[in-house]
Amino acid sequence: MDESCCCQRHKQRSEEEIRNLTTRLNRIGGQVAGIRKMIEEDRYCVDVLMQVSAVQAALNAFNKELLSSHIHSCVVDDIRAGKDEAVDELCDLLKKTMK
Amino acid sequence: MDESCCCQRHKQRSEEEIRNLTTRLNRIGGQVAGIRKMIEEDRYCVDVLMQVSAVQAALNAFNKELLSSHIHSCVVDDIRAGKDEAVDELCDLLKKTMK
Amino acid sequence: MDESCCCQRHKQRSEEEIRNLTTRLNRIGGQVAGIRKMIEEDRYCVDVLMQVSAVQAALNAFNKELLSSHIHSCVVDDIRAGKDEAVDELCDLLKKTMK
Amino acid sequence: MDESCCCQRHKQRSEEEIRNLTTRLNRIGGQVAGIRKMIEEDRYCVDVLMQVSAVQAALNAFNKELLSSHIHSCVVDDIRAGKDEAVDELCDLLKKTMK
Repeated sequence: MDESCCCQRHKQRSEEEIRNLTTRLNRIGGQVAGIRKMIEEDRYCVDVLMQVSAVQAALNAFNKELLSSHIHSCVVDDIRAGKDEAVDELCDLLKKTMK
Repeated sequence: MDESCCCQRHKQRSEEEIRNLTTRLNRIGGQVAGIRKMIEEDRYCVDVLMQVSAVQAALNAFNKELLSSHIHSCVVDDIRAGKDEAVDELCDLLKKTMK
Repeated sequence: MDESCCCQRHKQRSEEEIRNLTTRLNRIGGQVAGIRKMIEEDRYCVDVLMQVSAVQAALNAFNKELLSSHIHSCVVDDIRAGKDEAVDELCDLLKKTMK
Repeated sequence: MDESCCCQRHKQRSEEEIRNLTTRLNRIGGQVAGIRKMIEEDRYCVDVLMQVSAVQAALNAFNKELLSSHIHSCVVDDIRAGKDEAVDELCDLLKKTMK
């Protein structure tokens, strides 16, 4: 039954959260398409690089939002359920992804 | 005639460079679409976050490649032509975009 | 008694952990002093900048180590004790400090 | 004679620039010593981590200042003197040090 619990590598998100995350990703995808168009139109490097920086900022914001949601739900639930491997997994993730 | 020079905010890139940059951007766009699919399929946060990290790495690599090309062409040409504002522009760009 | 619990903004670390963290900080302090010496000796910018990069890497490693220790001890203990504000605090910290 | 030119891996900086850079490094060294003291005093992890973040920001600012100075002096001079290897060196540096 428990098909969407953390341990099975799925997570049930609310419709609102899915809509929020999907909207952000659509916008990021649009920004990437915009950069491709700039390259095709021979746009000046500095203008392209500023747009790349904007996409990086949008991805970072997405990353922080999803990470915060993960900690508030999966990690807290797992710790309460005594599944302490969630803590190692979180620290591994941070080690791999933090600059 | 000089419609694609730096000062007019355009830059003529070789076909090979355009193809290389566009291919990278297509791949990044595909990765972003893949993340949206993961969200729609209720995939586990940590798996999604690892994919976000991969997109960030791909964007950083794109950024470095374009920046290197910019310095080797526009910046060098401008300095040789006595247009020293290219130097301030580069330093401003680095200040805004370096973490 | 409980003078070193999280809620009072102190944390008792093992002697080994203190020694480990202090050793790392001494090394980082030495690297910073080394950079000052390089400036005083008119050393070439690129050599100085490579050393700055080494200090940044050492600080990042220190940061990840301390963060991992914090999550494994304070955060887990607080969540188990029902003090859920530790989760918000962690997410705030990550938002402020992640690039 | 030319013992402090770029190609010999030295760079003559103005007294003011040396003072500015040295002052920043002294402050960063003081911050690192402050963090060591916090560890010795069993201070709460989150407070220590916020200080680490402040040192990282100060180092980044130092890095950008020195990089800007390097580009404005060594790189521009070398390009004007036809020493184009300065451009490759700059791009290598950015590739190694940009996150």
